[in-house]
Amino acid sequence: MASFTTWVPDVEPDSSFSLANIPFGIATTLNDSSPHAVTAIGCHILDLKVLLEHPEAESVFLCLKGHEHVFSSPSLNAFAELGRHVHSQVRSTIQDLLSLDTKHPEVLKDNTALREKALLPISKAKMCLPMQIGDYTDFYAGYHHAFGVGSMWRGPANALQPNYTHLPVGYHGRASSIVVSGHPVRRPVGQIVVDPTAETKQPAVKPSQKLDIELELGCFIARGNEMGTSIDVNQAEEHIFGYVLLNDWSARDIQNWEYVPLGPFNGKNFATTISPWVIMPEALEPFRCKGIDLDGRPELQDYLKEERADGFFDIKCEIDLTTPEGDTSTISRVSTSNLLWSFPQMLAHHTLGGCPMRTGDLIASGTISGTKPSEYGSLIEMNEGGKKEVLLYGMDSRKFLKDGDSITLTASCGESGSRVGFGECAGSIYSARTR
Amino acid sequence: MASFTTWVPDVEPDSSFSLANIPFGIATTLNDSSPHAVTAIGCHILDLKVLLEHPEAESVFLCLKGHEHVFSSPSLNAFAELGRHVHSQVRSTIQDLLSLDTKHPEVLKDNTALREKALLPISKAKMCLPMQIGDYTDFYAGYHHAFGVGSMWRGPANALQPNYTHLPVGYHGRASSIVVSGHPVRRPVGQIVVDPTAETKQPAVKPSQKLDIELELGCFIARGNEMGTSIDVNQAEEHIFGYVLLNDWSARDIQNWEYVPLGPFNGKNFATTISPWVIMPEALEPFRCKGIDLDGRPELQDYLKEERADGFFDIKCEIDLTTPEGDTSTISRVSTSNLLWSFPQMLAHHTLGGCPMRTGDLIASGTISGTKPSEYGSLIEMNEGGKKEVLLYGMDSRKFLKDGDSITLTASCGESGSRVGFGECAGSIYSARTR
Repeated sequence: MASFTTWVPDVEPDSSFSLANIPFGIATTLNDSSPHAVTAIGCHILDLKVLLEHPEAESVFLCLKGHEHVFSSPSLNAFAELGRHVHSQVRSTIQDLLSLDTKHPEVLKDNTALREKALLPISKAKMCLPMQIGDYTDFYAGYHHAFGVGSMWRGPANALQPNYTHLPVGYHGRASSIVVSGHPVRRPVGQIVVDPTAETKQPAVKPSQKLDIELELGCFIARGNEMGTSIDVNQAEEHIFGYVLLNDWSARDIQNWEYVPLGPFNGKNFATTISPWVIMPEALEPFRCKGIDLDGRPELQDYLKEERADGFFDIKCEIDLTTPEGDTSTISRVSTSNLLWSFPQMLAHHTLGGCPMRTGDLIASGTISGTKPSEYGSLIEMNEGGKKEVLLYGMDSRKFLKDGDSITLTASCGESGSRVGFGECAGSIYSARTR
Repeated sequence: MASFTTWVPDVEPDSSFSLANIPFGIATTLNDSSPHAVTAIGCHILDLKVLLEHPEAESVFLCLKGHEHVFSSPSLNAFAELGRHVHSQVRSTIQDLLSLDTKHPEVLKDNTALREKALLPISKAKMCLPMQIGDYTDFYAGYHHAFGVGSMWRGPANALQPNYTHLPVGYHGRASSIVVSGHPVRRPVGQIVVDPTAETKQPAVKPSQKLDIELELGCFIARGNEMGTSIDVNQAEEHIFGYVLLNDWSARDIQNWEYVPLGPFNGKNFATTISPWVIMPEALEPFRCKGIDLDGRPELQDYLKEERADGFFDIKCEIDLTTPEGDTSTISRVSTSNLLWSFPQMLAHHTLGGCPMRTGDLIASGTISGTKPSEYGSLIEMNEGGKKEVLLYGMDSRKFLKDGDSITLTASCGESGSRVGFGECAGSIYSARTR
């Protein structure tokens, strides 16, 4: 492994994109308007398409021989399909090329012409969706969130359904409305019950007044499974390409009326935002931890039993709300360790009946909340079901999101100098369409 | 419009693929192992890739100028994207070329060389999935089914949720497990409650013992809508490419345990079968009808109000069950008019909040049942919630599907000689994977 000092200039000690990270993304640049693969180092991107087109680079990326085109592709799917072993080698090679004591200084460090073409200020790149997403599944593995929201609606004794501790509950989401950080989020119009206390419920069509956020961790599939087969929980990590932050925007008033008996639909499918950088499992390896330890949890079925107890990550997440006036308040800080089910368990369950996963499929954790109000992952928990104002910077407050508000999710692990950050998962609320 | 008599030999009067049909599909043939576009006439396919490669044909398919490649593509998506106007013209041109009194006999009818290359026995073609499916949505618009199954579980007074008559209830399904007719269906393994009467529910992992079918009509999207916009109910038909039959295989015991509170998941995502031929709206135009007329139905919201009352089709469907011994029984006959919501209404609702539809997305109606047992679209209705045996040919009977059973859905409209049939939507049950 190369040293964690890079020759790239201006890498701040607190940068999300230290040499210990090396995430993968898709971008367009000033020089190339076709979306293609890049990585990040400090406040620069390294253009992987430009790099791989260079004869000197070919000789160090031997594991990509015959697959050099993967970085010219408009999504990371072709790269993801090559498998974990290749991703790991490519990441190590990039780490070496960017290291102060690189074994191959002639390729990039001392190659001024290539460096000028391949290393660009991150502000000059426009990030795109990193993957072509086939199917998107949203789980509900955030125990504190599920318990908290369930208690609000049915009291603590009936907060969770009997299945909750036996299997990772999840539902199929909408892939077509997944957008990358920065994409505007238009407040949805929908059927909303006029008077929830009335005996006969009468809906009206109007803009959602209960627009909420859900902080989640997302996971992209590298290689899937054949239809009719299942993924073993202890081999599931081999199927994982990497991780992103995800905001599962939710219109609570629309969701509340529509969701029985078949689950959330228009309350969710208007937009889901993900962060642009796919963080590699190797970068997160030092931050493994246990998930939620639940008293009296029933014994797991064999197919959900993991050999290792640390299938979770301690990634520190933050939710920032910026008002239309430009004032930013941090409204939550929570660790991704607050999950009852790991991604390997979600994958084992998802494929138990033979459902095929495909390269580029996205699996999300469900809302991640801690036990305290300062650790909640959604506004509906912070406002106690719409009863309380969430205080912001200055004298401002919110129950739900206002037009012009921006939400920015960030997350990182590690020490200054070797930080592994996710970048931003951000979106601003645009006013509802007038019909 | 050309006459409805074709020069193609051996077209039986009862053929599903009369000159009045002209469906589109994707197939591989003995001469061409790359999936490509075909149509059907009687017991032949007409290879559209071969046809369009011929200089004589180019001059009659003027509306495809610059887009001739759409029929060489492995899915119909590129063709679908060209829009309703082009589909309609292409279908008319094919009808003319196949007519006894064609205006262009030199192109195909009298062109022995091309005829021999392009017109092949249907048995020599292997049908593939017709579309590359982005997202799949399953609605619940079969009122009699929803009411019947709801009554079984909650009694007739509470059979339907209050939202049911106000909006087309639906959920996001799994696109990766959609297969074409003939693909084997492996009985899924899943978590199933051991004793449903016990106070504390204890699941075990085993093969589903309640494997069921659901007869549905599916609808493919031609052109979608931009994210943040919605589709007007009275313009929605412009977005529809065509229709297929769909069997939404369902493992009732898995579904029953997992589905609260987020909807069906592993009980459905192991397989969904569709028929290979996309039937064009023009072919179904003569069979328009009204849907279910519901006493005391609340007034619809404006966005669901249709200018025309006949947004439904009277397509006669049939469900055949063939035992491992080879005996076939018709277990249901039902019309697709048994729906409360039309596809334009489903599309208007789906996009109300701005959810984007894309070319190739699939929308299904939900199970279609009539009011009588001989018209039910699922076994759970026929067996009254698992209480009764469904009688088959001979002395055989079923509650749910056995290994080795085959289910074949068929559907058609129209008179002998000008029939519009869907072909088969078939699948056989393979025994569960042993772990």
